[in-house]
Order: sequence, then C-alpha cells, then structure tokens
Amino acid sequence: MTEPLEALLARAPRLAPGHVWLAGAGPGDVGLLTLACLSGLRQAEVIVHDALVAPAILDLAQPETVLVFAGKRGGRPSVEQADISAELVRLARAGRRVLRLKGGDPHIFGRGGEEVLALAEQGIPFRVIPGITSGLAALTVALMPATLRGVNQALVLATGHDAPEISRDGLVAGALDWASVARLGQPVVLYMAVTHIVAIADQLMAAGLAPDTPAAAIGSATTPAQRILVCSLATLGETLAAAGLATPAIVVIGAIVATRARLLALLPQLEQEAMPWQLPG
Amino acid sequence: MTEPLEALLARAPRLAPGHVWLAGAGPGDVGLLTLACLSGLRQAEVIVHDALVAPAILDLAQPETVLVFAGKRGGRPSVEQADISAELVRLARAGRRVLRLKGGDPHIFGRGGEEVLALAEQGIPFRVIPGITSGLAALTVALMPATLRGVNQALVLATGHDAPEISRDGLVAGALDWASVARLGQPVVLYMAVTHIVAIADQLMAAGLAPDTPAAAIGSATTPAQRILVCSLATLGETLAAAGLATPAIVVIGAIVATRARLLALLPQLEQEAMPWQLPG
Repeated sequence: MTEPLEALLARAPRLAPGHVWLAGAGPGDVGLLTLACLSGLRQAEVIVHDALVAPAILDLAQPETVLVFAGKRGGRPSVEQADISAELVRLARAGRRVLRLKGGDPHIFGRGGEEVLALAEQGIPFRVIPGITSGLAALTVALMPATLRGVNQALVLATGHDAPEISRDGLVAGALDWASVARLGQPVVLYMAVTHIVAIADQLMAAGLAPDTPAAAIGSATTPAQRILVCSLATLGETLAAAGLATPAIVVIGAIVATRARLLALLPQLEQEAMPWQLPG
Repeated sequence: MTEPLEALLARAPRLAPGHVWLAGAGPGDVGLLTLACLSGLRQAEVIVHDALVAPAILDLAQPETVLVFAGKRGGRPSVEQADISAELVRLARAGRRVLRLKGGDPHIFGRGGEEVLALAEQGIPFRVIPGITSGLAALTVALMPATLRGVNQALVLATGHDAPEISRDGLVAGALDWASVARLGQPVVLYMAVTHIVAIADQLMAAGLAPDTPAAAIGSATTPAQRILVCSLATLGETLAAAGLATPAIVVIGAIVATRARLLALLPQLEQEAMPWQLPG
C-alpha cells in the first residue's frame, strides 16, 4: 500500500506565522498544481492572488482563509506593484501565514523578483515555490514540443509587454533587441505579446526572419477557454485580430510549431487528448 | 474542511490500458510534483523512468507497479532513444497503462518530442504532462529570479550538450550560434553544459560578452545533494572543475545572478529557507 496522500502533505514544511510563501499556481488547470503549492493553499490564513489564478484553485484553500485580490481584470487599472508588496509586508508583520499566489511561475515575467526584494528589505522571511510556467505548458497542450533534436538547441522566452518603438531617427527604442532575437534563429515564446504583436512581428521580419516562419497563439492554455491558432509570422497580427483572441495568450514563433501538424496527421484524436485536465475544484 | 487529496485525485482523467502518459517529474523534490503526475504514478502498471527521477518520487507508485529503468547512470552508456520508444510501443500494445517519467519537463531538452512522434507513428494514444523544468527551478532555489524588471526582458534556455567546434577554417561548427546568444545580451540558462562549459564560455566572450558577467552553477537542484556555485563567465570553467561539480547541473550566465547576493545581504537566513523541500517518499 502506498502512503496516503494526506500523510504526504502533512510532511511538507510549515508556513509559519509572519512568513510569506510566493507560489506559482501554474497555467490554470488544477492537475498542474504542485504538491508544495497545494500545501501552501491549505496552510495559508491569507492568500493574495492574481487574476490569472483559476477559481478552481482558490477553492482548494480552507474555507476560513481570507482571499485578497491583487491584479488586473476586465480592463480596470491594475493594483500598483508597490501596493501589493506593502500589503504582503503588512500581513506578515501582523503575524499572518501568507500565500502570495500567481498564475504560472512567479519568476517568469511574474514580477516575483520585485516582491521578494521588497520582502527582504523589510526583513520578512519568505520562500518561493516554482510553478509550471504558462508559456511552456501552452506549447505542450498545443502539441508543440518546445525542443526537438535536429530542430532547435535553444528557446527564447520573452515578454512582449514593452512595445518596440521607432524613434524619429529610425532607431528602435525599447530594451529587447528584436533583431538579435531574429538572428539567433531559435524559437521564441512570447508572454503578454498580443497588444504589440504586429510591431514585434514586423521587427523580426525586418531583421531577416522569414515571413512564412510557423507561428501560433495559444489563449487561456489548460483552461476550459483554451484556444489554439496556427498561422505564420506574417499573418500573426491578422490571425489574432480576426479570432478576437483574449488575453492571457502565449505566442510562439519557430519551426517547433510544425510538430503539431505532424502529430495530428498521424493521430487525429490527439486534438481531444491534448485538452486540459479539467479538474474543477 | 477542504476536499481530501484522494478525492481530488480521483477526479483525474483515467490512464487507460494501451495508453502512454509522458510526464515530467520536476527537478527532484517531491513537493514540486504536479497532481497530474502523481495521478499517473498511482495509475500506472508500468513506469519507464530516467536516472534523473528521484527514488522518493518512484516510491509514490503502487507496490505492484513495474519499474523499468531507461537512462544513463554512473558513466554507463545510455539506452538508445530508439530502444526506449520501441519499449513504450511494445508495452502499450500489450495493453499496459504506461507512465513514461522524466526528470524536469519532458519537452525541455528531454527528448520527449522524439518519443511522442514515435508513439504517434505507431498509433499509440498518449498525453503529455508538463513538469517543472530543472533550469527554472534551479534559479529559484538559488535566489535568482529568472526575470526582473529593468534587468532582462528575455531568457534563453539552451542545451550545452553539443560542443562548439572550431573547424580548420576557423568557423564554428555546431548548431547553436553562441555569438548570436552573446549579442542578444539576455541571461542564458544552460542545460547539460558542464562538459563543454569552457568552450561555450570562450565563444560567448569572443563574441563580446564581458568576462565579469555574473555566472553560477547549480548542481542537483532541489535534492539533498544541491550545490550552488557563484562566479563569473571567465571563471566558470575553473570554478566547476575545482568544485568537482557532478551532473546534473544547470549553468546560468547574466545579470540575474546578482540578485542572489542582494537578497542574502538583506536576509542571510534565506540560505536555509531556500533549501529543498526535502519531502522523502
């Protein structure tokens, strides 16, 4: 007989009063939650969560746990990052057992780094629990292995949140050098890129990436709202606009996208098999 | 009272006879296992696993489950990839409920893509369950947030498995263009890079990456054998050699490495807090 699961969770570290656990809840599906995150959900007295954390996951918390929403939803302005950090410090100082819960992984474009620095500056003990990052889970459910021998030796994860801007003298402003991304010639996984996708695709093509490079967008990966759109680099903008793809969405550009068609041609039922786990809380 | 874990898992999809689940077990710690992977461990009749899957994780399988080792350990030659795929097909055709279990994430330098293509070619139904990829978990336990506003807008995951080779005419052979990686100017996370680290670091420096770029190596992340070595790009080779760092190890190069020192200066106890969960099976 294997060990009862509740006994397994009982051996998890304690979330102590006045401590903060910063945990990733994964892309959305309950099946992609880690045991450590589940332990945090059960031990927390207060959970400060983002909009990207699925209700089915929050349902796993104790009924008496206080849920604090700290995120952006429905176009309303987001809570300021400094306010979130201050709230975490306040709750920890009040002796609460605090879970800061984010969609995906806290340290992959999740601003978790800023939060742990703010906690450390105030002397608040914390622990970070990795989650399945949404970009990689999205590729998997879309039947696009992120790496494939003979196809790619690297993968670029990038944020599309900051728009590439052309200044008056024709130079590109903005921190990420999209031309260098193009010249690397390896697949790119873009987070938060829907808004600026036309500008980003234009930059990549201007730097030499072929317009017919395979591309795809995966919306709300591993949730009931999941959508998979396959196109090319040149048609990304029109494809996303025509589909009215809502955020959150992951965009992937590169040869790895083509594996999806190979797999579906061999085994059409995969379209269903690759659907989310759909474990409602 | 929250829903018992047993009841939660009972709502997972069924691993049917003749089907294969290809799952990532995460970097090693039991706390970083997903509920979906745990469900697979419990349902499987046969588990075909790599050397990187921790014994404590295999202990979560049913006692009657057959464990098949398919990996490299202790310098012995690895099982051929084609043989592993053939074994998965054979087990599925025999009507077994098969879990193919890999360390980390099956699709991040795990050769999972080759295995699913082989299964699809033989008409074997499968499902892929993402795991926490070791490179990202290693950064988190080493107190190095993988992304930080104002520091980086992208992250390169790359395999260091293939050596960069200088051919007779001075050109670099090998598929990944390390000079382009250097010119991108974003942090790089290297998998399986210990063997070729000197050649890779030399290529990056030759392309203009500063020798004093922060660098680190994290061995056996989230396991009891975890080791964290911090150095610079120029000293990576000698640092790894002097420490005798064993594989598996993750190497990270870039400004994000410096966050570790900032956090430890503010909160020295983090050195302990960031240690693995240590949930033995």
